[in-house]
Amino acid sequence: MSTETEHRGLFVAVEGPDGSGKSTQARALVAALRAAGREAVLTREPGGSDLGETLRGLLLDPAHAPVDPRTEALLFAAARAAHAVRTLRPALARGAVVVTDRYVDSSVAYQGAVRGLGEEWIARLNDWATDSLVPDLTMLIDVDAATAAARRTGRDGDGADRMEQETADQHEALRAAFLARAAAAPERYLVLDGALDPEELTARALARVTAEADAR
Amino acid sequence: MSTETEHRGLFVAVEGPDGSGKSTQARALVAALRAAGREAVLTREPGGSDLGETLRGLLLDPAHAPVDPRTEALLFAAARAAHAVRTLRPALARGAVVVTDRYVDSSVAYQGAVRGLGEEWIARLNDWATDSLVPDLTMLIDVDAATAAARRTGRDGDGADRMEQETADQHEALRAAFLARAAAAPERYLVLDGALDPEELTARALARVTAEADAR
Repeated sequence: MSTETEHRGLFVAVEGPDGSGKSTQARALVAALRAAGREAVLTREPGGSDLGETLRGLLLDPAHAPVDPRTEALLFAAARAAHAVRTLRPALARGAVVVTDRYVDSSVAYQGAVRGLGEEWIARLNDWATDSLVPDLTMLIDVDAATAAARRTGRDGDGADRMEQETADQHEALRAAFLARAAAAPERYLVLDGALDPEELTARALARVTAEADAR
Repeated sequence: MSTETEHRGLFVAVEGPDGSGKSTQARALVAALRAAGREAVLTREPGGSDLGETLRGLLLDPAHAPVDPRTEALLFAAARAAHAVRTLRPALARGAVVVTDRYVDSSVAYQGAVRGLGEEWIARLNDWATDSLVPDLTMLIDVDAATAAARRTGRDGDGADRMEQETADQHEALRAAFLARAAAAPERYLVLDGALDPEELTARALARVTAEADAR
């Protein structure tokens, strides 16, 4: 993958297994950046563009289940390609901090590791889909299976879509896949313990993002 | 690509540039096979499954244009993956002759050659999408640019979707890409001159398909 930075902004991905508090952290990070006077864009995957949101609807609707693993992986990659072209690159070009709730690492972990399609192939597929748009920083929230399961159970009903129906058995495979991605490029990762207080997590992410944005 | 035959049926793709008479030939071939007492399934791409037809609607609707080339290629591959799993493999497993109007070669020619994404990569992407489901026979209808343009112009309005809006300038690139695929595996191709009488084309395709089906 290319690590060349062609944009003026800062591209931040927030990753982690379901139940890690990832979406909460993405929102809180963007709010904190805005409170500090920076232009920050919050986006998510699958989705993040009009076409991407249409595909998200197809992917997450239990009525379409089961979508076979290869079709699913290609739809995620298609939604991500549209996200990169229509949303991420334009915002980065004008200098914004762009925070996405999930990105390539989620596909590598879910489709590559858990569905058994191969982490290397899924990484290659998505590197092509995004024309090698790699996050400047990935905030990886690491949680153990018990914590994640408790958070999933405690959640309101509106979150119980297809992607949320992962079993606890899959958690360790996901976690290992995320950590392997971080270990392969540690300078581009901030790995945080999801058992920490949410405000503490946000503060650590904000400090790192602010430092990287100021260094540009 | 695998050339191993794991199914009892016969998998036939009908390929060619827009305006080659491909869809007419696919329909006529299936009608002739049925008249001869064989189980024949007519299908098409993009489409060929409930999910695939939904994606076809997204891809061919001018309201979604322009879809960037990588997103487009991934959506075609996703629709094809669903087509292979939901429609093609089940029909082939029960012994049917399955005739698809477009398959992988159309993506290699349109996305790989004309859109410039690379024929080798698009072939690899789609080989993965279909888990190496390769046609036993591809009927390639070869036409020159003038013939294809005349047929496109003469057509009723219902065919004028995004895929049909290819310019005549692109025709020769498409044609060359299709012919290169045929040249790489001549034993699996029946290349026919699209200037021939349509009934003659159907008769030649029927003879070849019948011989291959009987040899199984």
